[in-house]
Amino acid sequence: MPDRYYQHTFPNGLTLLAEKMPGVQSAAMTFMVDAGASTDPVDRGGSATVLSDLVLRGAGERDNRTLTAYLDSLGLQRSSSVGIHHTRFGCAAVAENVLTALPTYADIVRRPHMPEDGFEAARELALQSLAGIDDEPRQKLMIKLREWFFPSPFGRNTMGDKDQLEKLTIEASKTDWKRRYRARGSILALAGNIEFQRVKDLVEKSFGDWEAGAEIKIQQTPPPGNYRHEPQQSEQTHIGIAYPSLPETHEDYYTLRLAMEVLSGGMSGRLFTEVREKRGLVYNVWAGYSSLKNLGAITGYAGTSNERAQATLDTFIAELYRLQDGVTADELQRAKTGLKASTIMSGESTGARAGAIAHDYFMRGRIRTLDEIKAAIDGVTLEGVNAFLKKNPPGPFTVVIVGPKELKLPG
Amino acid sequence: MPDRYYQHTFPNGLTLLAEKMPGVQSAAMTFMVDAGASTDPVDRGGSATVLSDLVLRGAGERDNRTLTAYLDSLGLQRSSSVGIHHTRFGCAAVAENVLTALPTYADIVRRPHMPEDGFEAARELALQSLAGIDDEPRQKLMIKLREWFFPSPFGRNTMGDKDQLEKLTIEASKTDWKRRYRARGSILALAGNIEFQRVKDLVEKSFGDWEAGAEIKIQQTPPPGNYRHEPQQSEQTHIGIAYPSLPETHEDYYTLRLAMEVLSGGMSGRLFTEVREKRGLVYNVWAGYSSLKNLGAITGYAGTSNERAQATLDTFIAELYRLQDGVTADELQRAKTGLKASTIMSGESTGARAGAIAHDYFMRGRIRTLDEIKAAIDGVTLEGVNAFLKKNPPGPFTVVIVGPKELKLPG
Repeated sequence: MPDRYYQHTFPNGLTLLAEKMPGVQSAAMTFMVDAGASTDPVDRGGSATVLSDLVLRGAGERDNRTLTAYLDSLGLQRSSSVGIHHTRFGCAAVAENVLTALPTYADIVRRPHMPEDGFEAARELALQSLAGIDDEPRQKLMIKLREWFFPSPFGRNTMGDKDQLEKLTIEASKTDWKRRYRARGSILALAGNIEFQRVKDLVEKSFGDWEAGAEIKIQQTPPPGNYRHEPQQSEQTHIGIAYPSLPETHEDYYTLRLAMEVLSGGMSGRLFTEVREKRGLVYNVWAGYSSLKNLGAITGYAGTSNERAQATLDTFIAELYRLQDGVTADELQRAKTGLKASTIMSGESTGARAGAIAHDYFMRGRIRTLDEIKAAIDGVTLEGVNAFLKKNPPGPFTVVIVGPKELKLPG
Repeated sequence: MPDRYYQHTFPNGLTLLAEKMPGVQSAAMTFMVDAGASTDPVDRGGSATVLSDLVLRGAGERDNRTLTAYLDSLGLQRSSSVGIHHTRFGCAAVAENVLTALPTYADIVRRPHMPEDGFEAARELALQSLAGIDDEPRQKLMIKLREWFFPSPFGRNTMGDKDQLEKLTIEASKTDWKRRYRARGSILALAGNIEFQRVKDLVEKSFGDWEAGAEIKIQQTPPPGNYRHEPQQSEQTHIGIAYPSLPETHEDYYTLRLAMEVLSGGMSGRLFTEVREKRGLVYNVWAGYSSLKNLGAITGYAGTSNERAQATLDTFIAELYRLQDGVTADELQRAKTGLKASTIMSGESTGARAGAIAHDYFMRGRIRTLDEIKAAIDGVTLEGVNAFLKKNPPGPFTVVIVGPKELKLPG
């Protein structure tokens, strides 16, 4: 691996990834703990979300207020979120301060105080966020689309379930923390102005004796169905579409990605020009590749007025089928340039790189270099894309509608 | 000015700004044309928005489709938006390709085709975006808050007015383009891997003979009022607060900014800890400085359940008043570290820097260096902040509520 990248898995199962970036003062960290919505207890959807808040309310030698003040005093731009596979803690700052914060992140995941009043507040906020979705029909649509398309528990709403959150207790949360906050399967990625040996020593000191923990088995069940209408009184209709695709590790991955760029990349993408520009049907439309571990999907969205909703859905689906007829050399060239440009641009952002190497390792078990990605994009041929599209028609579709009226599915 | 920055105003009134950034391959452009919502014709609110779409539908020697395909073939990540003061066209890519695109951006603003069918589609999309706000109560709230707080036309909805958009004609749009798309007051800013002399030559060649145009006078009228309730059936109430503050050029600007950081910066900000963490009242709350030319404001937002709405508003206002009692040395230190950290981080992003130097020039008539900003932050003292806060109590408040029930204003 070139001098830019570093990868090491400690005996307890924690993997450290690092990327040394030229010309930056800052560093960014992405810390993915093996506690995503898919491993929430079956009857406690939202437990990971409550935990991701609760562990920050005091840890190690610092109480809630002192901990928060301390991390802010380092100038960290912080974030935390829960996805299907992981709970993710992120921060970025001047490189030295990100390294200084590492022992405190060890406190957070290994020695959280989890106070009773903090639990009540964290659960209350999780319930409020969930209630807030009712005012965000676009977000609501994408949540419902994942629930209806992906096999359970991979389609779960990462924000949790109202009834189950209401039943959650602090004892259950503590048990769940013990089960899922552990070294095995966790990934700590750093990118920026850093030095590998020093980073490794620091991480080893803070996380080297973190308990490995037991493996978690997931029971998979089929998704609920292929069409769902969520009645909502509004002038607008929101349409979500999904269908199965390749996993990200498949050899045809970039062939597929470039085909999707032709469909919906840049301003000259087909969906944008056909559905939005030429027909003036919608104010927002896109489709793209979406991936979970070993599971790929094409998902799409269109927001439109009620009277244009059926025409928008029909045109959207027609554009998906038209991909089978192939793309042009010009379209492919633009798609390649666009995808390579965003690769180069992301190579200049410490936050983007920390996230990318963490994602790479989780999906592939290794970091890909930027050059490898560029070469993979360049290696795709027009014949390759068109043969692929002919062999892989879109569908079967899952369609979710949020709006006042049901729509007719094509075919 | 250090070797990193460059500023030049051409005889026709166009100002070129540039920042050479070490260690990056990319460049970003922010091109601000003097056509914002505040100079929309009084009876044609939304004209700038329609124009910002229309001018991209073919320009110079390229028709609509060819133009879009050409810009995508350069791998440009593009954006365009309309603000109160300007229409903004942005792009970022490998530096060479951003420079290659400059003559085409000259075509777009100087030689747009503005086809009849393109006008109809652009207007239709503007109307649809406007209708879409009904499904986004948070966005709706912030639009109403600006309308009610700022003197007209500075509080105008940049998306336009439904009735006026419906009456807009292509002839009126062409006349408006001629009036507002001109060199005077326009700002073209580039940041990244660039060389000043070459950039200047390129811009001179494409924009040097752009017509200066006449000055545009704005008639200012007072804002409509201080309390407004927008009834909306929902489980959630959205609260917006605004009150007058210093313009960005005021010598106390960083004193004010740091005080606002104490109130709402980082995770240890008072609003976040008091309103969100301790009382569990809301799922989203913030307040911050917001600036127009010569006009500063503090604006804030809280989203909460209906039954908590009155308590949230009361606590929010109480926290604003509590600032008068001063901040602590620790709070100020954290605020300084946080603000400096984000300054340093933005110094590594070409897009952020292109936007920042354009903004600086518009507000101050010159670029500030990153070191100057850091020094200004460091120069603020605890005594200075606390004297300032004592002398400048919050208010008078404008409050806008989107939700089912009216709320009682404090005091």
